[in-house]
Amino acid sequence: MIAVGVIGITGRMGKILVDSIESNDELTLSGGISSQNIGKDLEKIVKCSDVIVDFSHHTAVLAAAKVAANHAVPLISGTTGLSANDFLQLRQCSQRIPLLYAANFSIGIQLIAAFIRRCAGVLKNFDFSILDKHHRHKKDAPSGTALFLAQQYEEIAKKSPQIVSLRCGNNFGEHVCDFCGEDETITVTHSVLNKRVFAVGALRCARWIVGKDPGFYGICDAIDFQ
Amino acid sequence: MIAVGVIGITGRMGKILVDSIESNDELTLSGGISSQNIGKDLEKIVKCSDVIVDFSHHTAVLAAAKVAANHAVPLISGTTGLSANDFLQLRQCSQRIPLLYAANFSIGIQLIAAFIRRCAGVLKNFDFSILDKHHRHKKDAPSGTALFLAQQYEEIAKKSPQIVSLRCGNNFGEHVCDFCGEDETITVTHSVLNKRVFAVGALRCARWIVGKDPGFYGICDAIDFQ
Amino acid sequence: MIAVGVIGITGRMGKILVDSIESNDELTLSGGISSQNIGKDLEKIVKCSDVIVDFSHHTAVLAAAKVAANHAVPLISGTTGLSANDFLQLRQCSQRIPLLYAANFSIGIQLIAAFIRRCAGVLKNFDFSILDKHHRHKKDAPSGTALFLAQQYEEIAKKSPQIVSLRCGNNFGEHVCDFCGEDETITVTHSVLNKRVFAVGALRCARWIVGKDPGFYGICDAIDFQ
Amino acid sequence: MIAVGVIGITGRMGKILVDSIESNDELTLSGGISSQNIGKDLEKIVKCSDVIVDFSHHTAVLAAAKVAANHAVPLISGTTGLSANDFLQLRQCSQRIPLLYAANFSIGIQLIAAFIRRCAGVLKNFDFSILDKHHRHKKDAPSGTALFLAQQYEEIAKKSPQIVSLRCGNNFGEHVCDFCGEDETITVTHSVLNKRVFAVGALRCARWIVGKDPGFYGICDAIDFQ
Repeated sequence: MIAVGVIGITGRMGKILVDSIESNDELTLSGGISSQNIGKDLEKIVKCSDVIVDFSHHTAVLAAAKVAANHAVPLISGTTGLSANDFLQLRQCSQRIPLLYAANFSIGIQLIAAFIRRCAGVLKNFDFSILDKHHRHKKDAPSGTALFLAQQYEEIAKKSPQIVSLRCGNNFGEHVCDFCGEDETITVTHSVLNKRVFAVGALRCARWIVGKDPGFYGICDAIDFQ
Repeated sequence: MIAVGVIGITGRMGKILVDSIESNDELTLSGGISSQNIGKDLEKIVKCSDVIVDFSHHTAVLAAAKVAANHAVPLISGTTGLSANDFLQLRQCSQRIPLLYAANFSIGIQLIAAFIRRCAGVLKNFDFSILDKHHRHKKDAPSGTALFLAQQYEEIAKKSPQIVSLRCGNNFGEHVCDFCGEDETITVTHSVLNKRVFAVGALRCARWIVGKDPGFYGICDAIDFQ
Repeated sequence: MIAVGVIGITGRMGKILVDSIESNDELTLSGGISSQNIGKDLEKIVKCSDVIVDFSHHTAVLAAAKVAANHAVPLISGTTGLSANDFLQLRQCSQRIPLLYAANFSIGIQLIAAFIRRCAGVLKNFDFSILDKHHRHKKDAPSGTALFLAQQYEEIAKKSPQIVSLRCGNNFGEHVCDFCGEDETITVTHSVLNKRVFAVGALRCARWIVGKDPGFYGICDAIDFQ
Repeated sequence: MIAVGVIGITGRMGKILVDSIESNDELTLSGGISSQNIGKDLEKIVKCSDVIVDFSHHTAVLAAAKVAANHAVPLISGTTGLSANDFLQLRQCSQRIPLLYAANFSIGIQLIAAFIRRCAGVLKNFDFSILDKHHRHKKDAPSGTALFLAQQYEEIAKKSPQIVSLRCGNNFGEHVCDFCGEDETITVTHSVLNKRVFAVGALRCARWIVGKDPGFYGICDAIDFQ
């Protein structure tokens, strides 16, 4: 049994993580803490966990990463809205512990990321755009996932895509990526039917990371796509 | 035979209008002028036309409307990017001639406009958004059609929709209108396969307007949807 | 408080109805019965209900309608897969009680139904098609809703649409209706995000039907769209 | 200058091929023949061509392939609706000449084919479906491209996808491929804006194949996707 500590346990994703841990025979919940109470019991929770899973806030994840590094406990984080400096600090922690970060833990998004890189290399005179649609309460725009997909394109195409965002109703999360040329278009759409998909992906990474060497990992290290 | 004068004859729509007039047994081309040369032969063309059809530029349409009013020749205009003041001047001309304006001459868009009004009245706690996609050379954003559809919503819902625009590849023109609620969404999409659709609509209005009383008309006056 | 009896209580919709009744201050659950056990306690449940709501099976709904008619209790039914003869029997029951039937209780589908009728009248040389997508466990194809939408088109256009069905993954229910012409297309898509939408609609009808005269009603009688 | 002979020159694709050859500085039209007149001047056209491009009919392509093999002229074919036996005969001809066959000459479809293979290997418990939409005059259903995409899935997943077809209006050709799981879906859509895309791809292959060794080639041999 792997003991999982959850940072951001009162958030949307935190609640789903708890349910998913409960229903998984290999995992047990060692404790949880909200972003607000991060100062209180953080050390206690880290100490009794085999791995920390974080879906919280940029201040909370940095605090958690430092305590985790001090106690040699691996960390999985899916917190979005991080600055370049936040990532720098996470990378410093990853010199002491295995640390895996992803803006989006669904397998579908990882497959699409690879497809975008492929298309960006071949469809050189096509225009590329990303539309991200999320529920009306989501504050950041573009989404962390849209930025991640844009980065895949930029690294190959050496130019930036158009990105637009809509915040409507109860949309669980949809990304529409469009390569549009003179005579043909390719559109690839990812739709989330249930946010559980992110918890399933993060916990799959959590099981993988226990026992690994220190380092800064991505989801493709943990999940073999071949 | 109805003699049609075309303002903006060298533009994309102008060329399609010429083809459509040529292939229509009831219409003949009495002359045409580009937006740039509007000063030159405007009066001559207006004089020998039964109706003027304009897809040009906001400065050109105002010049054309005034000359048309002086010679009692009806005018159809589909020029977008007009200011409130431009419309005021068009309305003044329409006291002397029948003048029909539409941001979009496709029947599909008019049907969707009515549907948006209906939904706006019923789906009061839904969020409404409009995405407009056009080819990479289109300069104005949002499109005139997107603004027209937004206006339909605003008049009923008394609030504004979210509007986003993408300018990509060779897209002929696509508008995606989305009512998104807690438990269901309605999405209505209009796609242009051939810009001829706008010429067909405008010329249908041109045939209708000849002989009408002075006034400011819309496409729904000319085309009976019942 | 209105006492609601549920036929088909162990099905997907039955469970959602129970939740929705529980969380509604004006409604109380007077009892429920599965399609399989319809013979057992049907009379008892009908007797102590102000209204019966049925999402069950064609044999169960007919049994329930007859008992409801005998006890003058109104009935709401959303059971699909009914034959012409089944409807005949329901209509006979509706001579004694108010009975409301709908293949789909979402407001969105009713708005789309009206839009299809409108378009069918105007876009006479367009082709019309319906795609219905549902989860892999749904047995009937096309869906009851697809057939209902097809009927709207047929009544106006006097011809049949193309209908295709896909049964995939965990799709909550999606209908894509497409008017496709020479130069433009109109596509209207309805997506269910949560099956609760059907329970909300059915219970809204249930509150409306109590006290009404006998007759065969539709959702448009119960919900005012103006 | 490469001399191109066109089989099926009076068909939709034939006309576009002629335009594309005319506007290409490296290519010249050495002659053309319709599917109906295949018996007449076939040998004459083959003799004066450096390469034959065929978008015709299954009987015509076999006749053309045999004559091309006799005169050692390479052949490109995009004719769909071929039987297993037809392919066998084409493969026999390809022992004597370089012969390249593709159901679809767009680069977009080839990229999507590779993506489907990738997803089929990873998303093992997802359902896969293909929707093909084409204009109302297209006779074969599913389209050759839909069958080609289905084959990519079958080779990896070892099971068949659901395929449905719609034939509506003036649709230039659209394929919607959908991986639908419990909690997420990936949908990839290919839309043709202009059939010229197929001519461009076929002529790119035609320029490549001149001078190659005999063999049965695919589009991926001719166009380097790296």
